[in-house]
Amino acid sequence: MQFQEIIAQLGEAANNNSLNQTPGLNPQIIQVAAIDEAKTGSLSYVEGGKFAKAIATTKADALILPLDETLQAQASEREIAWIATAQPRLLFARIINLYYQPFKPSRGIHPSAVVAPNTQVGKDVYVGANVVIESGVTIGDRVTIHPNVVVYPNVTIGSDTILHANCTIHERTQIGSRCVIHSGAVIGSEGFGFVPTATGWYKMQQSGSTVLEDGVEIGCNSAVDRPAVGETRIGRNTKLDNLVQIGHGCKIGSNCAMAAQVGLAGGVTIGNGVMLGGQVGVANQIVVGDRAIATGKTGIVHDVASGEMVSGMPNISSQLYRRLTVMYKRLPEMYRVYKELKKQK
Amino acid sequence: MQFQEIIAQLGEAANNNSLNQTPGLNPQIIQVAAIDEAKTGSLSYVEGGKFAKAIATTKADALILPLDETLQAQASEREIAWIATAQPRLLFARIINLYYQPFKPSRGIHPSAVVAPNTQVGKDVYVGANVVIESGVTIGDRVTIHPNVVVYPNVTIGSDTILHANCTIHERTQIGSRCVIHSGAVIGSEGFGFVPTATGWYKMQQSGSTVLEDGVEIGCNSAVDRPAVGETRIGRNTKLDNLVQIGHGCKIGSNCAMAAQVGLAGGVTIGNGVMLGGQVGVANQIVVGDRAIATGKTGIVHDVASGEMVSGMPNISSQLYRRLTVMYKRLPEMYRVYKELKKQK
Amino acid sequence: MQFQEIIAQLGEAANNNSLNQTPGLNPQIIQVAAIDEAKTGSLSYVEGGKFAKAIATTKADALILPLDETLQAQASEREIAWIATAQPRLLFARIINLYYQPFKPSRGIHPSAVVAPNTQVGKDVYVGANVVIESGVTIGDRVTIHPNVVVYPNVTIGSDTILHANCTIHERTQIGSRCVIHSGAVIGSEGFGFVPTATGWYKMQQSGSTVLEDGVEIGCNSAVDRPAVGETRIGRNTKLDNLVQIGHGCKIGSNCAMAAQVGLAGGVTIGNGVMLGGQVGVANQIVVGDRAIATGKTGIVHDVASGEMVSGMPNISSQLYRRLTVMYKRLPEMYRVYKELKKQK
Repeated sequence: MQFQEIIAQLGEAANNNSLNQTPGLNPQIIQVAAIDEAKTGSLSYVEGGKFAKAIATTKADALILPLDETLQAQASEREIAWIATAQPRLLFARIINLYYQPFKPSRGIHPSAVVAPNTQVGKDVYVGANVVIESGVTIGDRVTIHPNVVVYPNVTIGSDTILHANCTIHERTQIGSRCVIHSGAVIGSEGFGFVPTATGWYKMQQSGSTVLEDGVEIGCNSAVDRPAVGETRIGRNTKLDNLVQIGHGCKIGSNCAMAAQVGLAGGVTIGNGVMLGGQVGVANQIVVGDRAIATGKTGIVHDVASGEMVSGMPNISSQLYRRLTVMYKRLPEMYRVYKELKKQK
Repeated sequence: MQFQEIIAQLGEAANNNSLNQTPGLNPQIIQVAAIDEAKTGSLSYVEGGKFAKAIATTKADALILPLDETLQAQASEREIAWIATAQPRLLFARIINLYYQPFKPSRGIHPSAVVAPNTQVGKDVYVGANVVIESGVTIGDRVTIHPNVVVYPNVTIGSDTILHANCTIHERTQIGSRCVIHSGAVIGSEGFGFVPTATGWYKMQQSGSTVLEDGVEIGCNSAVDRPAVGETRIGRNTKLDNLVQIGHGCKIGSNCAMAAQVGLAGGVTIGNGVMLGGQVGVANQIVVGDRAIATGKTGIVHDVASGEMVSGMPNISSQLYRRLTVMYKRLPEMYRVYKELKKQK
Repeated sequence: MQFQEIIAQLGEAANNNSLNQTPGLNPQIIQVAAIDEAKTGSLSYVEGGKFAKAIATTKADALILPLDETLQAQASEREIAWIATAQPRLLFARIINLYYQPFKPSRGIHPSAVVAPNTQVGKDVYVGANVVIESGVTIGDRVTIHPNVVVYPNVTIGSDTILHANCTIHERTQIGSRCVIHSGAVIGSEGFGFVPTATGWYKMQQSGSTVLEDGVEIGCNSAVDRPAVGETRIGRNTKLDNLVQIGHGCKIGSNCAMAAQVGLAGGVTIGNGVMLGGQVGVANQIVVGDRAIATGKTGIVHDVASGEMVSGMPNISSQLYRRLTVMYKRLPEMYRVYKELKKQK
């Protein structure tokens, strides 16, 4: 496909973006690539930051640039075709779809799958080899269940949802439409409920269930527990990365994103549009408001207000955190003065 | 079941607890529920803290309360049946058992399971679809092995133990009675043993084994490694949450609890009744005494004495940690004073 | 085997090491063991540190010691046969190989495995029960694929590589020779690529692939994602422990070691010979130079130079970190003095 054809096909030319005006620049694009790895025939993108300097050396023939005239001039000078847009990464994502089709297995139920007789199966479903579906499960239209997945009894799986290989869905879990459960993830498993007694731990049965609303994505080897009573719930279009732990009874809003290795203890409430960086931990029963952000490794042990950005352990505002981090390194000099003063007294 | 019948059945009326004296209060209980989600016909509990105020608004018809007369009076005023007891959560856990039976598959070996001919199988065992049992494995009475589990050679599994779907038990592992291994957990895998040499890492074979004593529970996607020589051992009734890492050669006592994403490096010794909060890390060869507690995200790099409570990275006493956390936020004002003093000199 | 025979067989007598000169000391060694667990007939080792004092009490009949004459004298006095060498742990690892052969299943493809017809299979391969191999996969000579592994389309697996039970290899992944993928690990899964838009997250397809070079080892339940474009790459002989997260597009050099629960965000560059302690986190696009070391729980948010050793969150030099950790505990006394000074003004 040629560059101008790509732009036209996505309707981007008419979209209030800038285009390189160098006459005759319309390279053949055979692949999409990262700017620092691009070969001839590649289209790449720059969002800013440290990748911007790669414009000077990239072998890409076309670039998606931000609305930054300096970068645009650099690209023009090197006779690289470009389009400038407010969200280069989004446009790049859309162009990837022109060059790449994700693996989609053919429809049907593999003969080696073990599917309970009372399973309700929708249209155009794929159930891969060695999948096991227990009793009372409902599977929507166009659902894809990759090999070696296990689905416990009375689970509901909405249409167009994808379960990747080796994931496990426990009893009574409700999974919405257009969800993706990645390999090794475990959904609806027993919450960690042990009551201390004089004779040891008393196991609290986890009679509740887990609900994933439409468009939820759960990363590889993540675990979402069900509670003793009631629900664990993850809201519409919320995305979890790999190795994330969601404790029993958490209520998570819509459109959140949690990076890898985040851990939520039991009964946590998370609003809508919340973003948690990698390895963030959230303590029992904490409430985090809408659109709050926690940077990587934050330990949230105090409630977080809507829109607040927090860091550190225990969590404080990210602004204060940055100041304290600078101060912290000055402790040795402060200590020296303090010691002198102490002597003088 | 009616409220009075539940109390009688558990023998709690005679148990030195208080009971609501409002005459005629004996609601029909159709379900157990969290206090803030309860509908008519529900029984809930309050242990204290922020849930106590829900007594004013809950739709529950019966409550288990702590030994707190103010809360009891509030419930009585709203004509909610209640029983007050020293451990509300424990009583609630016992009542859940009257309303909920966990999923228990029927007995027998599924024809798709691949079981080595020399496997010793006890009575009333369940081996699910696509389970693979290698050579020399011993399976006790009433063991439940859910689908797609893999058991390597020479493993022993005690009676009444449950292995959930997609977990993996490696060679020579000994699992006691009444253990639960949750989905995706890996037990007895090779410890991370690489010796640096001039030509790169030399792999140390992990000839030891892993032992889980009776009543141990291992959370989803957790990993318990075996050592180069000797044993990794987890003591009686110790409970591990999801995504926990136990390094090679660790010795863990009985009745411990470790929250999600805890990580123990190699050769760690943990006493009895130890509690580790979420995302706690413990360094190589560290010793943690009986009944010690580490709050979430603690990095234990110094030994911890019996009964001690630690926090922070590196670990200090939780008491000191709380003080330092307050002081830390005062660094900017301290710095201002320090700077002025420096000028004056 | 007798002690002298072991030493001779490994060629260590001629190797510039010291040997116990006590005449006639040549015990029969029936097993290898940890020094504090050794029984009669055991060979153990001491590398130094807190295990050294176990020389006084061990029941081991032979020891591998460091080049430390005090320890050697202690062992001689107790009439324990010993050899002293610069790297006791390495010699011990070599001796384990004389006493232990890891489990190696017999060759062939199990009839329950589901292998796509166009799979290219090398010589002397083992494909275990219920393994699923999708279309277009190439499997080298002597590869071992344990039960319930799933391999997505167009994967390449080099010779002598071992895939442990229940791991998952996603589309287009290239695994080198002599790699080990432990149970539950997921390689080549979709990177966490979501672009924020006014209407929610836009999913960026992950058209790239993951490459593991020769000799790479990936721990249990770890996840290595593939990127939107280009490669995620792990260099020759790099070893990852359990529950490690490698984000999309990371480039990791050779001979690195990462302890359990390390997490790398997207696009991280790691040099050769880098060592990351347990629970270390590395932020997006960070560059870590050759032979750098990060101690446990470090949060790397600034680039790390070659050979540097870093600690803390945010990362600082380990030397400064140790000083600040000491200072930190003095904050309360410093605060008292500063407060007084403030009053005096």
